[in-house]
Amino acid sequence: MASISILGAGNWGTTLAILLHSNGQKVNLWEFRPKYAERLRSLRENKESLPGVLIPSDIFISSHLQEVVRGAEIIVFAVPSHVLREVAKGLAKIELDLALIVSVVKGLENNTLLRMSQVLEEELPPKFRDSIAVLSGPTIATEVCQGIPTAVVVAAREEKVTRKVQSIFMAPTFRVYTNGDVIGVELGGALKNVIAIAAGIIDGLGFGANTKGALLTRGLAEIARLGIKMGAQEVTFAGLSGIGDLIATCFSMHSRNRYVGEEHAKGIPLPEILSSMVMVAEGVKTTKAAYELSQRFGVEMPITHQVYRVLFEGHDPRLAVSELMLREATTEIWR
Amino acid sequence: MASISILGAGNWGTTLAILLHSNGQKVNLWEFRPKYAERLRSLRENKESLPGVLIPSDIFISSHLQEVVRGAEIIVFAVPSHVLREVAKGLAKIELDLALIVSVVKGLENNTLLRMSQVLEEELPPKFRDSIAVLSGPTIATEVCQGIPTAVVVAAREEKVTRKVQSIFMAPTFRVYTNGDVIGVELGGALKNVIAIAAGIIDGLGFGANTKGALLTRGLAEIARLGIKMGAQEVTFAGLSGIGDLIATCFSMHSRNRYVGEEHAKGIPLPEILSSMVMVAEGVKTTKAAYELSQRFGVEMPITHQVYRVLFEGHDPRLAVSELMLREATTEIWR
Repeated sequence: MASISILGAGNWGTTLAILLHSNGQKVNLWEFRPKYAERLRSLRENKESLPGVLIPSDIFISSHLQEVVRGAEIIVFAVPSHVLREVAKGLAKIELDLALIVSVVKGLENNTLLRMSQVLEEELPPKFRDSIAVLSGPTIATEVCQGIPTAVVVAAREEKVTRKVQSIFMAPTFRVYTNGDVIGVELGGALKNVIAIAAGIIDGLGFGANTKGALLTRGLAEIARLGIKMGAQEVTFAGLSGIGDLIATCFSMHSRNRYVGEEHAKGIPLPEILSSMVMVAEGVKTTKAAYELSQRFGVEMPITHQVYRVLFEGHDPRLAVSELMLREATTEIWR
Repeated sequence: MASISILGAGNWGTTLAILLHSNGQKVNLWEFRPKYAERLRSLRENKESLPGVLIPSDIFISSHLQEVVRGAEIIVFAVPSHVLREVAKGLAKIELDLALIVSVVKGLENNTLLRMSQVLEEELPPKFRDSIAVLSGPTIATEVCQGIPTAVVVAAREEKVTRKVQSIFMAPTFRVYTNGDVIGVELGGALKNVIAIAAGIIDGLGFGANTKGALLTRGLAEIARLGIKMGAQEVTFAGLSGIGDLIATCFSMHSRNRYVGEEHAKGIPLPEILSSMVMVAEGVKTTKAAYELSQRFGVEMPITHQVYRVLFEGHDPRLAVSELMLREATTEIWR
C-alpha cells in the first residue's frame, strides 16, 4: 500500500482519489478552500464537479497542505494550470522526503508558455527533478467513476518512474501504458483543448462526422508540427495523449472545452459562457499560449489561428470554417 | 469540362456523381441492375441508398457499361469490393482510350487479400497501370450530399495523376489533399472498418468516449503495424485516410460497419443483422482478410483478433473488451 496525496479536488482529482483508493492505496485529498474541504469531508460527495459519486470515508480530506502531503510517496498535482505554480511554491516550503510527483494538469502556463512539468521543475527542490511524471490520455472523469474502460499513458525521464506510476494506477478498467516522451505527452494533453473548442464550433454549426474527422486529423497534424519543433517525438501524437485524448474530448458531451466552442458558435458571447461554468475550460487560455508558441517557433497552425480569431477577435465561426476549407490545394504532410 | 464515368450507383457512387456534376463535369453513372437503372433514370432518386437526394437530369444513367464509359477521361470504381474484379474484367473487354482510373472502394479482396488497386492492375490493360488512383478519407455520403465540409486524400504512383484528380474533385465543401502513398491510403480505408465494428460493440455495450478514444488509438496502432509491413508509410495512417476516416466511421450514426458491431453487442446474431441491411458492410469481410494478413505478416493485432472471434467464433463481446483491458502492462509503441 502506497501513501498518495492528491492536490486538487476538482472532478479529475476526486476521481483519481477514488480510483487509487479502490486500488488499495492510502489516499489523502487536498481542497484549497477550507469551507469546501469541510463540506467534502462531511458530505462525502463533490456536489460541484462530481455529483452523485461517493467519496469513501477513509480518504482523508483537508485544506492544510502540510497535513495532506505528510509521509506521501506519491504527490499528484490535479489543480487548474493557472494556480499550479503557486501550489508548487507552497509545497516547496514544506520539509518533504523524496516522493514521486505526478502532474495530471492539461494546460500551458500563460506568459511563460511553459509545460506543467517545467513549472514543477522550477518550483520544487532539485532532488525532485528526475521524479516528475505526467499522466495523460482520454479521461473523461465521470466515465472513469462509472468504471467505463479507459486507457492512459504515463511519461517521465526515468523508466523506473513510469513503471512505478503504472503499477500504482493500473486497474481492471484503467489501463496504463508507459512512454518516454514527456514533452509529447504533455503537449498533446494541453493542445488538444484548442482543437476541442474547434470541434465544439463544428457541432454548434450543425456540421457532421466528415468535418470532425477532417478537423481532428488536420488538428493533430498542426499539434505534431509544433510539438516536433519543441522537442517531442512525432509518434507520441498518434498515441493516447495525442489523438486518443483529442477524440474523447472532441466527442464527449462532458467536455468543457468542446462546450465552449459549441455555445460560442450558437452566438453566445465568450465571457457569458465562461462565467456560467463552475469548472475551468483550460482550452481558452491554451489557445492564447498555442497561438504565441506557433509564432515563436514559426509553425503554421491554421486551425489554432482561426480558433484564436474566433475567441479573441470576434471572427465569425462559419467564416472561419470556410476559410479553412478554401485554403490553397495542397498535399497531406505533417512537416 | 471532363467526361467522367462512375461505376456503381450505391450511396457513394451516386454522391460522387452529384458532386462532380455540380463541379461542372459531364457525368455518366452505371448501375448494374437494368431495372434499377431504369428506376433511377425515371425517378431521379436513389431510394435504396440515398433517399431524398435529387439526381440532376443531365447525369446519364445506364446499366450498359459500354454506353457509360464511352469517351470517359476518368472512370471511378464505386462498387462493393467483392464484385470489383468482375466489373474490371467487363471493362477490360471494351475498347478504351487511356483514362484515369479512380478507386473509391474500401475493402480487400477475400482469399487473394489484395488491395482494390491491385485487383484493377491485374484486370485492366497494362497501359492503365500508372493511371490508377485511390480516393479515401472521412466521407459519410449523406453528409457530402448536404454540403457538410469534408476533406479527402487522393493517392497515385504519379504525382500528375493525383493533381489531376485533385483539380477535378475539389469543391468549396469538398477539400482534396494529395499523397504519394497508395498502399497506406488504401489500407487505411479498408482496415478502419474492422475497428468500426469494434466501436459499434463499444456503443452496444454502453461504454463511453474514453473507451472509444483508446480503441481508435490502439486500433490505429495495429493498422499501422500491419501497414508498415505491407509497404505503407507510417505517417499516412495519421492522415485523412487513416485516423480521419476511422474517427468519422466510428462515430457516425450512418456507418454500416459501426451499426453491425452495435447490433451484435446487443445480442442480435450476425446473419440476422446482415440480411436486414440493404447496403454492404465491408468490414465483416475485411475482418477475415485482416486477420489472415496479420498471420501472414506475423503482426500482433489484438483488436482485430477479438473482432474476428466475436464475429466468427461466437466470442462474447463483453469478454473481448475485458481481455483487451487486462493484457499485460506495456509501453505505448507502434512497431
